[in-house]
Amino acid sequence: MNFKLDEAIEILERVPQSLALLLSGLSVGWLQSNEGKGTWNAEEVIDHLIEADKTNWIPRLQFILEEGESKPFPPFDRFAHLDVSSNVTQDQKLLEFQKIRQGNITKLRQLVASELDLEQTGNHPAFGTVRVRELIATWAVHDLTHTAQIVRVIAERYRSDVGPWIEFLGILKRPELA
Amino acid sequence: MNFKLDEAIEILERVPQSLALLLSGLSVGWLQSNEGKGTWNAEEVIDHLIEADKTNWIPRLQFILEEGESKPFPPFDRFAHLDVSSNVTQDQKLLEFQKIRQGNITKLRQLVASELDLEQTGNHPAFGTVRVRELIATWAVHDLTHTAQIVRVIAERYRSDVGPWIEFLGILKRPELA
Repeated sequence: MNFKLDEAIEILERVPQSLALLLSGLSVGWLQSNEGKGTWNAEEVIDHLIEADKTNWIPRLQFILEEGESKPFPPFDRFAHLDVSSNVTQDQKLLEFQKIRQGNITKLRQLVASELDLEQTGNHPAFGTVRVRELIATWAVHDLTHTAQIVRVIAERYRSDVGPWIEFLGILKRPELA
Repeated sequence: MNFKLDEAIEILERVPQSLALLLSGLSVGWLQSNEGKGTWNAEEVIDHLIEADKTNWIPRLQFILEEGESKPFPPFDRFAHLDVSSNVTQDQKLLEFQKIRQGNITKLRQLVASELDLEQTGNHPAFGTVRVRELIATWAVHDLTHTAQIVRVIAERYRSDVGPWIEFLGILKRPELA
């Protein structure tokens, strides 16, 4: 086990800023690139990250700390953000993500006051017993998995443009396309 | 084909900054995480990106524009950076990457003055005929493939820490570990 709260927070602090630098001001062709029907573009991934910061991580953390394993916490709708149509620009979304994350890190530090809190168990509707530290580790890795996804769907746009070099570019190797 | 020089440059400009924000000041445990023997950690990937910016992209571009297909350009040693031992800190490397990239983007704009230059063909030692625009597209996707790699090797550190949530975290699904 490698988990330390301060180190998990290092990731949670940096990802929204790093994504803002990558995506802010990018041409719309990059932002709307996806991997085919039913897949998300970079904008939709940012919507999902904002939605998860609003409705998933901190609410679940509070639920576990208050209820323990007495009742399962509500499932998270991983597709909720797709129903939200809005006129918000991509740059505004990137700012919103940074802002909501900053607030959530403050809440996280307030809620988890001791090593004991990290070991508190809760009742996941599908997995059963889970621990606070697993939830926070998952939050950090969730940031990373969606960062990798954004980078991958952007790269997809140049699939034919790289010519024969595609052979050396792991990011464009998707088994289902082989 | 989606390639446009200005849009490729958007990626080349942003990746070094975005990686600097992600990695700067991270605990050494994150920076030294890897995927097992013979795999690169985040620091080694940055070394490779710096090496490629020094010895690969711009020198190859110049070679193609000067020599055309008359002779094959020299192969790129993709492991050269592993021989370089240094006392340079990670933050210094991240700055070096940003600085060398800035200079290379200036050179790129000077070297490729017209649409015609983008269509110039060269002779790749393994692939045969390649075009300048394919080289530049590959440069951008190379940035993205190694960004995804960095994010993936960092996430690897929490493989056991996420507990049962591993099921939902695509970044930790490596077929060879299944």
